[in-house]
Amino acid sequence: MSFKRKMDRSVKKAGSNIVLALDLPFDPPQRLLHRSVKTLETVHPYICAVKINRQLVLPLGLFDGVQKIVNLAHDYGLPAIMDCKINDVGHTNRSIAECYYKAGFDAVIANPFIGWDEGLQPVFEVAKEMGRGVILLVYMSHKGAGEGYGQTVRDFKSEKLMPQYLIFAKKALSWNADGAVVGATFPEKIREIHAILETRVPIYSPGVGVQGGGIDSAIVAGTRFLIVGRSITLAEDSCEAARRIRDATMRCLEK
Amino acid sequence: MSFKRKMDRSVKKAGSNIVLALDLPFDPPQRLLHRSVKTLETVHPYICAVKINRQLVLPLGLFDGVQKIVNLAHDYGLPAIMDCKINDVGHTNRSIAECYYKAGFDAVIANPFIGWDEGLQPVFEVAKEMGRGVILLVYMSHKGAGEGYGQTVRDFKSEKLMPQYLIFAKKALSWNADGAVVGATFPEKIREIHAILETRVPIYSPGVGVQGGGIDSAIVAGTRFLIVGRSITLAEDSCEAARRIRDATMRCLEK
Repeated sequence: MSFKRKMDRSVKKAGSNIVLALDLPFDPPQRLLHRSVKTLETVHPYICAVKINRQLVLPLGLFDGVQKIVNLAHDYGLPAIMDCKINDVGHTNRSIAECYYKAGFDAVIANPFIGWDEGLQPVFEVAKEMGRGVILLVYMSHKGAGEGYGQTVRDFKSEKLMPQYLIFAKKALSWNADGAVVGATFPEKIREIHAILETRVPIYSPGVGVQGGGIDSAIVAGTRFLIVGRSITLAEDSCEAARRIRDATMRCLEK
Repeated sequence: MSFKRKMDRSVKKAGSNIVLALDLPFDPPQRLLHRSVKTLETVHPYICAVKINRQLVLPLGLFDGVQKIVNLAHDYGLPAIMDCKINDVGHTNRSIAECYYKAGFDAVIANPFIGWDEGLQPVFEVAKEMGRGVILLVYMSHKGAGEGYGQTVRDFKSEKLMPQYLIFAKKALSWNADGAVVGATFPEKIREIHAILETRVPIYSPGVGVQGGGIDSAIVAGTRFLIVGRSITLAEDSCEAARRIRDATMRCLEK
């Protein structure tokens, strides 16, 4: 089953389009693993997938610690996404993707800035070989995102000047990516990017809550999946926070 | 001592400006660690630093396996550079850099495309706090590098169109980076970038050998450090290969 179909099935089953970003602050490994597992156990009924970042991989190790969390996610029927933002040369990118897929991840996130030849082509190849997904960064959620993702670039094909993120959106389409990351903090960009991607490449939006992005504005603009981290993981009651965000999202989708 | 001074001292002591890229192909962890240690033991007299990538971090783990290699490099008086190509949001970037510095790395490599605010600022901050270095990607060595690093961009300040890599070179200067990565496969770019950076930000060039870059052309154009991986690590006689490349580099520098 393709990653896109896995995600669709998970949304239906869970009645949620929240991807939990399990980015916990640094802690001694055993405690960090314990907290990660606890958080996932607590909030799993309210999410459709888990996203893991280097905050867990570096202290816990991939095949020792993180793989346990991936296995737990799978036990709950949740796909696992590795937010490794791949942006190296081809043979290294391939190694990175292969390691994460071997550890059980269903998709990796990559940066299209690195280009295709000897860049992301080997990642899409290994994804195809192993039946996994590749999600591309199109516009990130932080303040400085405008510096790179928002810059004006001369398009190679048309020679016209256009925003970097629209060039990336077109690459997401032509490379047949399984998703596109666009920050919830920039709903007007989501709208523009969604006009290109339509339903062919679903939009994943981080930045809700702590970073200032709104749920409604993102979903109305075209976001399919909300990536939520600290608003859930750092909440006093993670379960309650996850349910509240899930409910707000579903209300907005039903409008 | 600053990272730049550490590198200068190491070059003088070793009589070499070769940074060994210890990117070995996937192997079971124990064998991979053994081969990494063996390679470093064999070639250490001919290099001035070691660069490690995710090919080792993901299978070996950071604090178990990779830290042993970093410690061994330090025993030989060699600085260790982590090629993690940081390109995430600020709080994640800070976590990544902090983990690698805690494991002993003297510098990390980062991608300026992510921008300053809530992007690389936290990385430069933690580097300063811990007395370590940050090296920026300015032009990479692979075929597809032109797609991103070579694209034409409208400069935010001057509003003039200029190549992305020159914008990155200016950022390396104004952010006070400890080094700039420019592929040895593009000597004409090295020359242009060196004209901006002069001796203030030393150029590190990967891509010699397997990827097709020449030693002489890179050094004549302004490269200060050659990053060499597979030409040494995959050679039948790594020691002989390292010595030959070191000698060729030093001959070129003496011209």
